[in-house]
Amino acid sequence: MSTSAPQSGTIRPTDDEARALARSLIDRARFAALAVLVEGRPMVSRVAFATAPDGAPISLVSDLALHTRALRSAPQCSLLVGEPGVRGDPLTHPRLTLQCSAGFTGHDNPQFPALRDHYLTVQPKAKLYVDFADFSFVIFTIEKAFLNGGFGRAFILEAGDLTKKGAP
Amino acid sequence: MSTSAPQSGTIRPTDDEARALARSLIDRARFAALAVLVEGRPMVSRVAFATAPDGAPISLVSDLALHTRALRSAPQCSLLVGEPGVRGDPLTHPRLTLQCSAGFTGHDNPQFPALRDHYLTVQPKAKLYVDFADFSFVIFTIEKAFLNGGFGRAFILEAGDLTKKGAP
Repeated sequence: MSTSAPQSGTIRPTDDEARALARSLIDRARFAALAVLVEGRPMVSRVAFATAPDGAPISLVSDLALHTRALRSAPQCSLLVGEPGVRGDPLTHPRLTLQCSAGFTGHDNPQFPALRDHYLTVQPKAKLYVDFADFSFVIFTIEKAFLNGGFGRAFILEAGDLTKKGAP
Repeated sequence: MSTSAPQSGTIRPTDDEARALARSLIDRARFAALAVLVEGRPMVSRVAFATAPDGAPISLVSDLALHTRALRSAPQCSLLVGEPGVRGDPLTHPRLTLQCSAGFTGHDNPQFPALRDHYLTVQPKAKLYVDFADFSFVIFTIEKAFLNGGFGRAFILEAGDLTKKGAP
């Protein structure tokens, strides 16, 4: 028994239930904790969160934010999704740690308009600032994931385990 | 305007309102996102959270967890506290990023029993595992903090700004 995730002691074999749970944590998330490197140190902050049409995690970030500048100089990062409800023990609530590499899609990228329109269907309030010059999309390429489905239910997932069904 | 914290573009002068908000985010938190370094990469996971009698952030972690072993080899870390409610835009909800150094208090430490009893008043469900041999307390020494009180309300705080009033 442990309060913590990801586990290393008792990893279960990945099964379809774990894959589906992990994918649902990604698909439902509207914000995430993002860990980046700042001067060689880890730093965690909150970012908006959604998925691209192909299922990749994305965020919309401002160049004014420290984490944006951190990602531009060191794209390796980590995301935590899966928010506890208001009741019960938050550590029994499933959560997913993603190890990712971050790439940027700015206003000058031909893919920006389509991504913008898609994002606004999920995060409609971002319409207020998505067109500001300092905002860009970050697309996170998942390299590995750690799923904690609650006490004693830890899994290590590969990128292929998290592929969105029916993704374009 | 920005979706992100911490900001670097428009930092406000720290005032008592910012100090009180930051302190309340620490005092109310019962879990946190913890960012550590694993093989030189940032990794974020969820941990239990409380404060010691002197106001220092603490957690109870298992040696089986990857983040525990990471902290033992690289104590510099970061915590995010301040959970959005179920309604409204999560990025308008105040949150606090802490830059910390982690120290351990294990069962063999003379301060363990007092810390244990205090912790269980805040996290009573931890009684199930606090006495397991693989569990230790982590005490986080705050070095710096980034407060995002909502759009356009960003502050950089020093450790002295977060001292608990009336702490022993």
